[in-house]
Amino acid sequence: MDDLARHSPADARAVARQTRLDIREGRWQSLTTGMAPGIVQGNLAILPRDWAADFLQFCRLNPKPCPVIAVTEPGDPRVPELGEDIDLRTDVPMYRVFEDGVCVDEVPDITSLWRDDLVGFVLGCSYSFEDALIQGGLRLRHYENDSKVNVYRTGIQTTPAGPFHGPMLVSMRPFTPADAIRAIQITTRFPNVHGAPVHFGDPAQIGIEDINKPFSGDDPDIREGEVPVFWACGVTPQAIVECAKPPFCITHKAGHMLITDRLNAELAIM
Amino acid sequence: MDDLARHSPADARAVARQTRLDIREGRWQSLTTGMAPGIVQGNLAILPRDWAADFLQFCRLNPKPCPVIAVTEPGDPRVPELGEDIDLRTDVPMYRVFEDGVCVDEVPDITSLWRDDLVGFVLGCSYSFEDALIQGGLRLRHYENDSKVNVYRTGIQTTPAGPFHGPMLVSMRPFTPADAIRAIQITTRFPNVHGAPVHFGDPAQIGIEDINKPFSGDDPDIREGEVPVFWACGVTPQAIVECAKPPFCITHKAGHMLITDRLNAELAIM
Repeated sequence: MDDLARHSPADARAVARQTRLDIREGRWQSLTTGMAPGIVQGNLAILPRDWAADFLQFCRLNPKPCPVIAVTEPGDPRVPELGEDIDLRTDVPMYRVFEDGVCVDEVPDITSLWRDDLVGFVLGCSYSFEDALIQGGLRLRHYENDSKVNVYRTGIQTTPAGPFHGPMLVSMRPFTPADAIRAIQITTRFPNVHGAPVHFGDPAQIGIEDINKPFSGDDPDIREGEVPVFWACGVTPQAIVECAKPPFCITHKAGHMLITDRLNAELAIM
Repeated sequence: MDDLARHSPADARAVARQTRLDIREGRWQSLTTGMAPGIVQGNLAILPRDWAADFLQFCRLNPKPCPVIAVTEPGDPRVPELGEDIDLRTDVPMYRVFEDGVCVDEVPDITSLWRDDLVGFVLGCSYSFEDALIQGGLRLRHYENDSKVNVYRTGIQTTPAGPFHGPMLVSMRPFTPADAIRAIQITTRFPNVHGAPVHFGDPAQIGIEDINKPFSGDDPDIREGEVPVFWACGVTPQAIVECAKPPFCITHKAGHMLITDRLNAELAIM
């Protein structure tokens, strides 16, 4: 990601289209981290039409963990607002299929599972604000350590809507206070990709019992003079879907995102 | 300040003009805290012309503690950009007169001390961002306690210019982390009145040895679950002047500010 400065927007979109084509045609079924620099990647949730209205309301009530950047027409796998050619049935490298809230399969293509009543939700992803943090001159420990970002389950309850409810999950990045202030400023510009942090400092204040026992990710590496800074996390909707137990649901597999044609810079509100 | 919502801009300016007239004519020689709600109040530093260029350069290099909002022509006590009728010789309720860096007098009028070579600097003041914090729904402990804000001398060195050098002073306000994030967002909008904080959390990281021993202000009142948040402080230039020891200098007395015709809201950059 740190070579974005050498990419023009046109170049960035060309890379995105080629990467998406590789994924569509089955040549890439792995993580999309660091691919298509400068380009918006999205979290995916696909639900039957009769669950979609409640889920959209849930996202509206919980914009920090669930920032909606696109919703499809029922039965239509296209998402023209994010890219002319995007097809949600083929363009994510690995999908997870849920029945009654339980993951029953992981597949690289859902064409055979597609139905006329399915509605796709694309949600903003922290890759976009991480790109902005790096372009803003900050260093991300999990990039430098080549490790996965730490995610925690919190005691902060999301605002429920219909059957959707559950705890907010957060991602954590350590910063010095001066860098944390800068990170708050930068991510404030990106409300569509989780926006400003929800907390910093004492993990117990948001119900995290042990900072060294994350929900996912590697061992935290918080150094002398740094504080943990917590952002609402795009893993939240998957946890919510597991709580709500819709009869059928498809999501992306964590880190295996939808690559769009939109630039991260387009998401900045200022 | 919390009744600003009931003032129109025209009303706020009318109150400011009447307050300034009261000060000019000697009817008010005390603190201006809370007077003329919604209106910009300024820190004042007046220096001989041959010291002014270095001081302006110092302010340019240290915009967080020394945000310049107006500079006069040499010998001219008027500041039309802040208010048509402002006269720096009479419009501050109490001045401090320095000779060789030592305060030698406090007077309510400097007409008899004015010289053809004096240049006035008006610097932004934290009252403006405190107004914005309150209008943004945050609560300020020192307002609630009816006490003075805590100011600390730090180990952060300002960037020197000519004879001007010395440590940065900071003001401290305690907040929960969630409110601190909001306070960072709000004050970021006001770079002309110190802008975003320079630090939060551990005071030792910026060279404050004991948070309970402020440079000025009452006993700190930091409660369970709160962190101290530190902003660059407008007291810094007075400390710098004391270090640089110009032969002649006049400042306002702390808290006895210049009341302008500008609205705090006009200082917001977004």
